[in-house]
Amino acid sequence: MVKIAPSILSADFAILGEQVSKVEQAGAELLHIDVMDGHFVPNITIGPLVVEALRPVSQLIFDVHLMIENPDLYIKQFARAGADIITVHAETCPHLHRTVQAIKETGVKAGVALNPSTPPDILEYVLGQLDLVLVMTVNPGFGGQKFIREMLPKISKIKAMLDRIQSTALLEVDGGVNVNTAGEVAAAGADTLVAGSAIFGAEDPAVAVQKIKEAAGEKNL
Amino acid sequence: MVKIAPSILSADFAILGEQVSKVEQAGAELLHIDVMDGHFVPNITIGPLVVEALRPVSQLIFDVHLMIENPDLYIKQFARAGADIITVHAETCPHLHRTVQAIKETGVKAGVALNPSTPPDILEYVLGQLDLVLVMTVNPGFGGQKFIREMLPKISKIKAMLDRIQSTALLEVDGGVNVNTAGEVAAAGADTLVAGSAIFGAEDPAVAVQKIKEAAGEKNL
Amino acid sequence: MVKIAPSILSADFAILGEQVSKVEQAGAELLHIDVMDGHFVPNITIGPLVVEALRPVSQLIFDVHLMIENPDLYIKQFARAGADIITVHAETCPHLHRTVQAIKETGVKAGVALNPSTPPDILEYVLGQLDLVLVMTVNPGFGGQKFIREMLPKISKIKAMLDRIQSTALLEVDGGVNVNTAGEVAAAGADTLVAGSAIFGAEDPAVAVQKIKEAAGEKNL
Amino acid sequence: MVKIAPSILSADFAILGEQVSKVEQAGAELLHIDVMDGHFVPNITIGPLVVEALRPVSQLIFDVHLMIENPDLYIKQFARAGADIITVHAETCPHLHRTVQAIKETGVKAGVALNPSTPPDILEYVLGQLDLVLVMTVNPGFGGQKFIREMLPKISKIKAMLDRIQSTALLEVDGGVNVNTAGEVAAAGADTLVAGSAIFGAEDPAVAVQKIKEAAGEKNL
Amino acid sequence: MVKIAPSILSADFAILGEQVSKVEQAGAELLHIDVMDGHFVPNITIGPLVVEALRPVSQLIFDVHLMIENPDLYIKQFARAGADIITVHAETCPHLHRTVQAIKETGVKAGVALNPSTPPDILEYVLGQLDLVLVMTVNPGFGGQKFIREMLPKISKIKAMLDRIQSTALLEVDGGVNVNTAGEVAAAGADTLVAGSAIFGAEDPAVAVQKIKEAAGEKNL
Amino acid sequence: MVKIAPSILSADFAILGEQVSKVEQAGAELLHIDVMDGHFVPNITIGPLVVEALRPVSQLIFDVHLMIENPDLYIKQFARAGADIITVHAETCPHLHRTVQAIKETGVKAGVALNPSTPPDILEYVLGQLDLVLVMTVNPGFGGQKFIREMLPKISKIKAMLDRIQSTALLEVDGGVNVNTAGEVAAAGADTLVAGSAIFGAEDPAVAVQKIKEAAGEKNL
Repeated sequence: MVKIAPSILSADFAILGEQVSKVEQAGAELLHIDVMDGHFVPNITIGPLVVEALRPVSQLIFDVHLMIENPDLYIKQFARAGADIITVHAETCPHLHRTVQAIKETGVKAGVALNPSTPPDILEYVLGQLDLVLVMTVNPGFGGQKFIREMLPKISKIKAMLDRIQSTALLEVDGGVNVNTAGEVAAAGADTLVAGSAIFGAEDPAVAVQKIKEAAGEKNL
Repeated sequence: MVKIAPSILSADFAILGEQVSKVEQAGAELLHIDVMDGHFVPNITIGPLVVEALRPVSQLIFDVHLMIENPDLYIKQFARAGADIITVHAETCPHLHRTVQAIKETGVKAGVALNPSTPPDILEYVLGQLDLVLVMTVNPGFGGQKFIREMLPKISKIKAMLDRIQSTALLEVDGGVNVNTAGEVAAAGADTLVAGSAIFGAEDPAVAVQKIKEAAGEKNL
Repeated sequence: MVKIAPSILSADFAILGEQVSKVEQAGAELLHIDVMDGHFVPNITIGPLVVEALRPVSQLIFDVHLMIENPDLYIKQFARAGADIITVHAETCPHLHRTVQAIKETGVKAGVALNPSTPPDILEYVLGQLDLVLVMTVNPGFGGQKFIREMLPKISKIKAMLDRIQSTALLEVDGGVNVNTAGEVAAAGADTLVAGSAIFGAEDPAVAVQKIKEAAGEKNL
Repeated sequence: MVKIAPSILSADFAILGEQVSKVEQAGAELLHIDVMDGHFVPNITIGPLVVEALRPVSQLIFDVHLMIENPDLYIKQFARAGADIITVHAETCPHLHRTVQAIKETGVKAGVALNPSTPPDILEYVLGQLDLVLVMTVNPGFGGQKFIREMLPKISKIKAMLDRIQSTALLEVDGGVNVNTAGEVAAAGADTLVAGSAIFGAEDPAVAVQKIKEAAGEKNL
Repeated sequence: MVKIAPSILSADFAILGEQVSKVEQAGAELLHIDVMDGHFVPNITIGPLVVEALRPVSQLIFDVHLMIENPDLYIKQFARAGADIITVHAETCPHLHRTVQAIKETGVKAGVALNPSTPPDILEYVLGQLDLVLVMTVNPGFGGQKFIREMLPKISKIKAMLDRIQSTALLEVDGGVNVNTAGEVAAAGADTLVAGSAIFGAEDPAVAVQKIKEAAGEKNL
Repeated sequence: MVKIAPSILSADFAILGEQVSKVEQAGAELLHIDVMDGHFVPNITIGPLVVEALRPVSQLIFDVHLMIENPDLYIKQFARAGADIITVHAETCPHLHRTVQAIKETGVKAGVALNPSTPPDILEYVLGQLDLVLVMTVNPGFGGQKFIREMLPKISKIKAMLDRIQSTALLEVDGGVNVNTAGEVAAAGADTLVAGSAIFGAEDPAVAVQKIKEAAGEKNL
């Protein structure tokens, strides 16, 4: 069964604690926390203080996605704030092995994200260290974008790479995931789906979470 | 009478709308929104989406303080999100006159902030265009720091510069302002006081706002 | 039959309109416009104003080659100035998929260029979106350099990649192309040849264009 | 009598040699060559190759205005291309004294330009080395902007600084200069006026040059 | 037989000449000179002046490893200072082919280093030009780190790439190499081993060099 | 009596401990340690490891001059390595007050250096915190340059600024100081003189130190 990670980007920031509780009760397993610095991507969102404020109100796995340059400088702050997983972008890390080690030294799980254009080969020499690989199926920066279908073979390829080394890392997909795309994404090998407006914008988030899981499951049989 | 601008940095981000309403009811005139990008200052806070979420729940003057590099790239986003004043740091703007013009072209009021070490001379050729000057009395990046007393003569000097050109721009002070420091700050010429923990951390924010205003008023007579 | 794209870098900038007309009459199909910013490459050449000035005097396909950092910031300016194709360097685009989309949204065709040392794998997940792939056979920055023969297998590899997805994108080669090298380059799979001094420096550009096409055709049979 | 420096930014780049000859015959003394790199200012214009192409067709003083970051890297290229004066922006030069020395070591005259917001104090410890000070009266990046009147006292202040050390450096003004503003600018102390559209856009450039000189002279009496 | 390159990082900088002589007498073939700029890696070590000071006191092959951004700017300085080999990091060189050419034009041998996470594919189009490939088996920045075993297949892969083109380039390994790891490293294909504390920290460096060579040789049979 | 700070830049790096002992015995009071990162200045010199190696061999005051960008990142490393004073360049510190605080929090004395072109006004709001002001009388980057006489009034101005606030900070001068210039420099108000080749290059360093002190003293009477 796939896991669902609602993206905070689609939440109402005026009542964030309440929103997070709602998706937790709706059956989501993770909370996808989109951190943007206005440099790596053309948007600024939230930082450690917001993570820290949400930690006491939720048992969800905090899946912190750093869309920022020089992420090494912020690993400790996010770990202290309550992150369970910290994911960095391969495009921002010339010393990717060192960055992954630095995340793990804080006791937090480590993930690496790939932009749509980035080939998976960059993962080859760190894959054994990873707890999560995140495949972007839209260009990072904004919510509400359309799923890029050309990413399906990339998901499959990474799935095969993970299987080859018997890795149990999560294979997460972020961008345009909803009931229409979840099946293909899961079929390609993803086990963790980020969904934004499809959940926070739903009348009943629990139904929305369930429908995405079902959509993922059907084709996944 | 001085105006009070509670700093969102000290609010509880899980219930931000509620927190903002509380300081509005407490008699604050502005909401000081601290935007940090993790590059100009060593912290990441919040961005346009948060401003946008708060706009419908508050009538406060949204006083957006951009502690970010290349602020020109984000002026339009913050204006659309509901900013009433956008303040940029002189240290980040080699084209400060152009940046100020760009803010005003969006219909928003324009401010310039100065780090503790930055001399006020940098304001000389844009002062006539400004709606606000912000004197930092702590180094930007974190809440809860101690007021730097050496900034008092800088406040006085800028007050004199503003008076000389008969400017009605607000003279705002940010950093370590509380009942103990408000008097001196106001006496030096400030008319708008940013306060963080002194208000959001108070048992009764209305009392806290009132006390700071009184403290400012006493010495200001 | 290969297409010829004379490089503006070898033209006389005092009489640019006339020079462009001359190569147009000589039978060239495109005009290769080398834009350098002095940051990505150690030279500054020309920008949108020059493109705009040439647009009314020529029907050639304006093939704008952006050897600049942060090309996203200039796509609209060059599109408005009259570009038909805008090519960016993969080395400057961590968000290459987004950049390609941004070019296409302006209604202009999109290309990606590769430095001599850059492997073609970086193209894998954007290739289906491209109208042109540009293989540099000298290091970008200056005209008049010697063809790097080691690039021939790269041209062949990209040709195979394009054929595999049935792409009709142009496969362009830039650097040291002349009557001596055109044959091999075309044989490797290139269909569009940039030539600078070989054309603008020729006594009779029409003869020069013809000879390069013939050289390309001979081995291409 | 003031000197006139037509800005190449307003010329027709398809017939640049001819355009330059025209303003030379019209009585201009300098050619103001606006070099922009798309990093210091949001526009890319022209580089050393264009300067080199114009050198044989004109006797004008080539007054090269580098609106670029890290200008030290390009001083030699522009000197070799035929510059008579190279002017750098103070905002781009943490080692301004060294940069000025580097220009002079190439045998070319050295100037420093100031953005509208930049106070003249930055010139204090290099002023004795300078052959030209350039006061920007619009924000650099584009032609056709409106003169910023607040710059008049800055011109006067720099004039006084130059007089105090008995410097014979040119005091040049760039931005929105035309028959309406030339008088004030000259009265404030400027002796060299950059004009773009007012000259290249004029039906008779000779008349335009003459009228600006007269406008400057009238108030200058 | 493998060659040994003691890393200067583990020497006593107060008596550097003496230390270098000692490892030379101990039978080392190269001196590995770790240059760090505090930007590419989080440490600053030494520069051209130190290389220059050591040149007269040693006949060792000076193997200069540039862990710096923009290495192109320093190639000439290190060549003049006495480098025999200059190695740059692929991660810092978007124009890697050009950088390699620039090194060779100074008459010095050229190497390329790869961070632990960097795949060897980046070498494909420059491999024929190289005199040395350096595989980092720790993250660059500090001495005394633990060998990363996952790098062994990378060494083998590069060895195969070199053999395929019949290259005689050195295949050097840097990081955590000692008597325990030298065997595997050599077995994977390395022929030049950097060792720091294992040699400079040894009671008898000659014995230490010999033991590492033997350890490498045993498994290498 | 002035204090003398021999610049390590002129020492023989092969026998650094011995060289430092020699100038200590010669009567110097400080050791001026020139740290360059190849980014702020066009040279790379030495870092914390070299400071650490010299600490046990010398009782001199280690006066560490950071000619590096982002010095905040290296303050702790140099403090741990044994620095007594850490001096940063005002041109590299937009948060100069914070940087000075950070130095003092490590228990080390704090200095600020000014490039030849930098006006002293930048010091106004941090002067009370400083233990040393360093006036560069050559452009930083290399030893052996000629003293820039235009800096004498800057020294005098800073001396007056220090006296006004009754500061006991050292006023140090670096660049081209020798027996011919020491008198003027001291007369202008400097009390600590950096000298490189004048001391390390002298036959008898003790005589050289003495002569500079005498030269400084004569005019200082």
